[in-house]
Amino acid sequence: MRVYSTQRDPLNDILARKYAETADVSAIVQKIIERVRTGGDRALYQLIEEIDNVTLDSLTVSKAEIETALQTVSAELLEVMEQAKANILAFHQKQVRQGFASTEQNGVVMGQRILSLSCVGVYVPGGTAAYPSTVLMDVLPAKIAGVKKIVMMTPTDSEGNVPVAILAAAQIAGVDEIYKVGGAQGIAALAYGTETIPKVDKIVGPGNIYVATAKRMVYGTVDIDMIAGPSDVLIIADHSANPRWVAADLLAQAEHDKLAQAILVTTEEALIKKVQLELEQQLAELPRKEIAAAAIENNGKIILVQDLAEATDIANLIAPEHLELSVADPFALLGKIENAGSVFLGHHTPEVLGDYFAGPNHTLPTEGTARFYSPLSVDDFVKKSSYLYYTPEALEAAASAVELFAETEALIGHARSMKVRRDNDSTFAAKDKKSADRFV
Amino acid sequence: MRVYSTQRDPLNDILARKYAETADVSAIVQKIIERVRTGGDRALYQLIEEIDNVTLDSLTVSKAEIETALQTVSAELLEVMEQAKANILAFHQKQVRQGFASTEQNGVVMGQRILSLSCVGVYVPGGTAAYPSTVLMDVLPAKIAGVKKIVMMTPTDSEGNVPVAILAAAQIAGVDEIYKVGGAQGIAALAYGTETIPKVDKIVGPGNIYVATAKRMVYGTVDIDMIAGPSDVLIIADHSANPRWVAADLLAQAEHDKLAQAILVTTEEALIKKVQLELEQQLAELPRKEIAAAAIENNGKIILVQDLAEATDIANLIAPEHLELSVADPFALLGKIENAGSVFLGHHTPEVLGDYFAGPNHTLPTEGTARFYSPLSVDDFVKKSSYLYYTPEALEAAASAVELFAETEALIGHARSMKVRRDNDSTFAAKDKKSADRFV
Repeated sequence: MRVYSTQRDPLNDILARKYAETADVSAIVQKIIERVRTGGDRALYQLIEEIDNVTLDSLTVSKAEIETALQTVSAELLEVMEQAKANILAFHQKQVRQGFASTEQNGVVMGQRILSLSCVGVYVPGGTAAYPSTVLMDVLPAKIAGVKKIVMMTPTDSEGNVPVAILAAAQIAGVDEIYKVGGAQGIAALAYGTETIPKVDKIVGPGNIYVATAKRMVYGTVDIDMIAGPSDVLIIADHSANPRWVAADLLAQAEHDKLAQAILVTTEEALIKKVQLELEQQLAELPRKEIAAAAIENNGKIILVQDLAEATDIANLIAPEHLELSVADPFALLGKIENAGSVFLGHHTPEVLGDYFAGPNHTLPTEGTARFYSPLSVDDFVKKSSYLYYTPEALEAAASAVELFAETEALIGHARSMKVRRDNDSTFAAKDKKSADRFV
Repeated sequence: MRVYSTQRDPLNDILARKYAETADVSAIVQKIIERVRTGGDRALYQLIEEIDNVTLDSLTVSKAEIETALQTVSAELLEVMEQAKANILAFHQKQVRQGFASTEQNGVVMGQRILSLSCVGVYVPGGTAAYPSTVLMDVLPAKIAGVKKIVMMTPTDSEGNVPVAILAAAQIAGVDEIYKVGGAQGIAALAYGTETIPKVDKIVGPGNIYVATAKRMVYGTVDIDMIAGPSDVLIIADHSANPRWVAADLLAQAEHDKLAQAILVTTEEALIKKVQLELEQQLAELPRKEIAAAAIENNGKIILVQDLAEATDIANLIAPEHLELSVADPFALLGKIENAGSVFLGHHTPEVLGDYFAGPNHTLPTEGTARFYSPLSVDDFVKKSSYLYYTPEALEAAASAVELFAETEALIGHARSMKVRRDNDSTFAAKDKKSADRFV
C-alpha cells in the first residue's frame, strides 16, 4: 500500500481516490424504462430473454420455490439468519419515531404525523453480489416501519432460479412477493407497475450501473434510497493496534470490489511495515485475492499522522462508509467524528460484525456521501404529514399579518382567502367553535 | 370547473391530471454544469452575462446591500416576518431528534448519533416567484438543525440587484452568505464550489426547469430536497362549508401557476353550483386572473362523492400537497388521511395560513409525491451515524455465526477478519477489557 504522511504530502494527494470510469448507459436505460412503462409484463419477458438470455414461465417466485429453498438451506444458516434478524430488529426498533401535536394560544392545534409507506420495492443484485444479509438489512427496517407490502426484485441464474439463500432470507425477513426481474427493467417495473408487479412508493437496494442509472431516472416518480458506489473502510490505529487484525480488516473491505477503498490512518510509524507484511501474507491466502489486490492497488493507502486529532480530521474529510477506531480509548474519539456511515469502536469490533449480525444497518453512504446521507433506517420507510387547526379567534389574530405578507408577494388571491373570512363578520367573530364550524 | 361524480365517472378520468410538457433541457444544463465545474467564478460571470444579460461586479451580496434592504423594507413587513419566524421556529423545534445508545449483553454498546450537515445551499428563484416566505421556510429548519454555514443563491434583476424583501428575509432567517447566481449555474456552483462559492452538502429550494434538471443531475454529488412541481390543493367540503371561502381557497392555489391543481371533493351536490358561481365572481377580481383561469381550466375539478369515506379515499389516491378539511368535524377525518403534505382542519384554517405564518413548513411534496416525500423539516438538515462496540466476550459469542454467514456469501476475507482475532488466543480470551484493548 502506498504510504503518505501529513507532514510531507499535500492534502489533495492524500485524499485522491480512483473512481470507476463508468460508461454512460443513460440512453440504453432510458429505452428499457420506456419499454417496460408502455409494454408491461410482455416487455419484461422480452427484455429478460434479450438481456439475460433466460426464458421464464412466470415472473413470480412460487410458494413451492420458497419451500424448496427453506429445505435446501442448512439449519445452521437459518438459525444464524434468525439471530441476525433478532439483532437487526432490536437496533432498528429504537429508531421508531412518534409524531407530535401541540396546542397553542387561541385554541390552535398543530402537529406532525409519522405515516408508513404503503408499498416498497427491494432490489437484490444477482450473481456473486447476491447477499442474503442485504435482504435482511433492507427489508427488516421496512417491516418495523409498518410498510404494508414489500416486494423483492432479483435476477435469476441461467436456469431461471433465484439462489436459495436469498429466498430463505426473504422468507425470514417477511418479504410479501418476489419477482424474477433484475437490472434496469426490474427498477422500471417497480416505478411504473405492470400487470403483475405493483407500482411501489420507494425502491431500495444496491445494483450495477444499469440499476443505479435506472434508479436515478425514476427518482421523483418514486423515492429511492441512495446511489451506492464501491464499499470503503477507514481504520484509525494507534500503538495499541494489532497489525494482523488491521490487515485482515483492510482486506475484508478490499475483497468486495476492485474499486473498493481501504485506508489505514495511523499515528504509529512502527505499525506501517508490520501491516504491509501482514497484507502481503494474508492476501496470498485469499480466494478473492485478485479483486482485493486490485482494490489495494487502486485505492489502498496508509496515511501517517502526527496525532489522533489529525487522524479524525482526515476521517472527516474522507467521510468513510465504515470507520474503525482501532485505538486504546475509542470512545474518546467518537465525539470528534462528524462524517462516517457507521463507526466500529475498539479492537474487538471488526467491521464484519456490522455486515451481518450486530444490528446496525449495513446499507451505508459510500464515496464520501456520509457528509449528507445516513445509514438505511426505519426513517426511510415512513413519511411525515403536518397538520394545522385554527379557531376563529386565532384566525382573526393572524389575519392582518398574513394579508400583509401575501400582498408583499403580490399574491392577492392568497390575501383574499383571509379577507373573505373577515367579511363574513357574523361567522368570523363567533367565539363558539361549534357554531362557527357549523354555521351553514 | 369540470364536475365529476364517483357514481358516474371512471376513476381514471377523475384522477387525470395535466402535467407540463417540459422540454428536455438536459443537454443545455449538462454543459452549464461542466462549464462551472471546470471554470469556477469566471464561468459564472460569463454565464450570467450570456443567460441573464447582466454584468456583475461581484458574485456576493455586500453588507451594504443588506443594510439598504433592511432600511427599505417597511417596519410592518419586518415585524410580520419576525412573527412568522417565531412561529416557524416553535413548530420546527419540536422536530429535533435525539440519538440513542444502548448497552447489551456481554458489554456491547451500540447507538445512533444525529449530526448536523456542515454547509447547506438554499436556492431562491427570481422574478415573480421570489418569495421571502420561502427564505424563512427553507433556512430556519437548517438553523435549528445546527448547520454551520447556510448560503443562498438567487438571480438578480437586470440591474444586478436582489429584491429587498428577499435580502431582509435572509437576514432575519440568519443566512450566512448570499450569492447573485441563479439557474443551473447557481446549482452547479453549490454542488462543486468555486473560488468564491463554497461546495455544500445539500441544496434545497424550488426553481424552474433548468434548476430542477440541474438538481437532479448533481444529486449524489450533493443531497437535494426534492424535485418540486406546480402547487396543488384538495378541499374536502361537506354541508357545513362556505362556498365563498372554498372558492377563495381554490383560487389562492390556482393563482400560483397555470398548471397548479385545485380540486374540490364534496358530499354536497348543492354546494357545487354555489362554488362555481363564487369562482366566476372572485376570479374576475383577481389581478392574476389569467394564470388562475388557466389553472382552473387545466387542472381544476369538482368531484361529487357519496360520503366522507369516499372523499378521503380520493384524497389518498391524489396525495395532495395541501389538503383542506372544510367539514363540520375535521379531526374525525385526520386519521383517515394517509397521503398529504400538509392538512388544514376546519373552516377557519385556510391553506394560506400555512404559506406564511402558522409554523408548519410550506415546502411540501407536489404532484402526488406525498405518497413518499415529507414536508421540509429539521430532519433534512441532519444525517445519522451508527456506532458499535464489542468486547472480547461479545466477539467470541458472535464469531461462529458471523463466520458462517460470511462463508455463505463466499467472502472469506470477511470470515478471516473474525478468525484472526480468535487465533490470537491470549488476547481474544482476555476478560479484562483494558488489558485486551492495550495488549501490545
